[in-house]
Amino acid sequence: MRSNKALFVLEPDKIARLKAETGLSDPDLLCALVHDTQSQARPPISNYPVAAVALGSSGRIFAGVNLEFPGLPLHHSVHSEQFLLANAAHNNEPSVKLIAISSAPCGHCRQFFQELRDASSVEIIIAAAGEDCNPQPLSYFLPHRFGPDDLLSSDVPLLLDCHNNRLQFLDKPDHEEENEELRFSKEITHRETVANNDDLCHNGLCNGNINDVEEFDNLKKAALKAANGAHAPYSRCPSGVALMTADGGVYAGGYIESAAYNPSLGPLQAALVAFVAAGRGGYGELVRAALVEKSGAVISQESTVRLLLESIAPHCEFHTFRCCVMSD
Amino acid sequence: MRSNKALFVLEPDKIARLKAETGLSDPDLLCALVHDTQSQARPPISNYPVAAVALGSSGRIFAGVNLEFPGLPLHHSVHSEQFLLANAAHNNEPSVKLIAISSAPCGHCRQFFQELRDASSVEIIIAAAGEDCNPQPLSYFLPHRFGPDDLLSSDVPLLLDCHNNRLQFLDKPDHEEENEELRFSKEITHRETVANNDDLCHNGLCNGNINDVEEFDNLKKAALKAANGAHAPYSRCPSGVALMTADGGVYAGGYIESAAYNPSLGPLQAALVAFVAAGRGGYGELVRAALVEKSGAVISQESTVRLLLESIAPHCEFHTFRCCVMSD
Repeated sequence: MRSNKALFVLEPDKIARLKAETGLSDPDLLCALVHDTQSQARPPISNYPVAAVALGSSGRIFAGVNLEFPGLPLHHSVHSEQFLLANAAHNNEPSVKLIAISSAPCGHCRQFFQELRDASSVEIIIAAAGEDCNPQPLSYFLPHRFGPDDLLSSDVPLLLDCHNNRLQFLDKPDHEEENEELRFSKEITHRETVANNDDLCHNGLCNGNINDVEEFDNLKKAALKAANGAHAPYSRCPSGVALMTADGGVYAGGYIESAAYNPSLGPLQAALVAFVAAGRGGYGELVRAALVEKSGAVISQESTVRLLLESIAPHCEFHTFRCCVMSD
Repeated sequence: MRSNKALFVLEPDKIARLKAETGLSDPDLLCALVHDTQSQARPPISNYPVAAVALGSSGRIFAGVNLEFPGLPLHHSVHSEQFLLANAAHNNEPSVKLIAISSAPCGHCRQFFQELRDASSVEIIIAAAGEDCNPQPLSYFLPHRFGPDDLLSSDVPLLLDCHNNRLQFLDKPDHEEENEELRFSKEITHRETVANNDDLCHNGLCNGNINDVEEFDNLKKAALKAANGAHAPYSRCPSGVALMTADGGVYAGGYIESAAYNPSLGPLQAALVAFVAAGRGGYGELVRAALVEKSGAVISQESTVRLLLESIAPHCEFHTFRCCVMSD
């Protein structure tokens, strides 16, 4: 199975063409796209594929599917609705107002949706057989909600709002430019990996040449950028993961926290959303991963990211980089 | 902080006395108990204590509080509603019909409640300031639910129904009685532990004497019993954890799975519910832990149990035992 990149982000001109060809309304088009997308789900445990599709305020349409990871507890799973919102966040979508899902959203996802600004007015369609495709507001699906306003002041950015978590690497203070190759060499010496040593240098990525140094630095920077865009207003422990394939592709995602804690989406899961949404194939394509998180954070993702990575891509190198928060 | 065992399970005679003394109705009594229980919560990350209390069909009242574990991702957290249902399950309560919670239940917990038989008719009270203490059915809080009936036939046991998962240890077939001391010795040789070797034999528990062999066997049996009572109808990978304190106390719990996957409660979390509900103090009291799970299971809890245990009780030994399912 290879996923189809074109299904996960639809541009307005493509949408206009589709609507002209089919005569479908927005809700009906979303329902049709849900069914087209469902086959891209990766649910090897449940064999229960789920898809979710949303119309954003930019006029683009985003999709999500569920991902499951055998061998580990079920909390590693990514629900299609989480995939959808992470995908929208990766594409800097300011807001989504209409979402169609292939089956009734579970409570976990109704809670995850609460991280959207004006969540209660987001319209949901259940695009399943026997349903009428009529949108209902999220407030119908989760009345009397527990949400961000129970814990945060109204000026704190929510999921699709612009975030800048002001993280910077501990090993590179602003005033001190370090030699890139020297730093890379130090990191390679101390790197943590889920692979056997013999496997570290497959694909020619770890030979210390200048291209490798540049690629490695790009991976770190992508993870830092993802961490700086992460939504972690409850723990204040943002983090991000960037993944690299043997052909040099980089896929990054930032941690997304929920007011209710458990429905949070880990940074590796968010990066895997980017990987799948880009139309990539099996996770075995991953050769290198970087996690960026705060030093001394009360929430550390490191051990859990390593666990999942060991399971899905045992030959992938894994590096963790600690950050501090820039002062004003 | 030490928790108060008497708060977590109230017997009918105690309840009758409380009602006679106070003149409170069932809903008002539950609301009062929610406030009494809230101080037992252990939320060191959020500092947001939550309590949930339920009246069971046996006439007993069960309580739950939220537990959080710094240093790890938030999905390790136990919500008060999950604690409550695990506590009821540990005490073989056949059903709960009325639940009071100190704040609006999150979507994750509304989903977890779906594992109860006739979930939609369970009545929920939000026992918070400004709320009217009037019960509303769970179907109001999670309309158009995704639940067990989307995936299971109606004869499959649900959370508080009687379970027998028919697991038996791989190392002790029914027809072959193995010498207990020899088996213990083999296990000690091969044991996995989160402690340094130097720390293994603190508290005199690992000296191989006959009391120790008996204690170890009791721990294994408690974990097996918990695994056999676990609710894992979706993955069919039941598991259980038993924890031992230096004074020989044993606290066990079985994995509780959710139809929506992510709201599932891990077996270590379930065992920690038993530990906290028994009025025990800090997790540092734990000296030995046993996980029982299916051999070759698509869902393995082992690595995640080890992670959490390393974090909360770094000197606790950890053993995993694999099982097969008894044939008819």
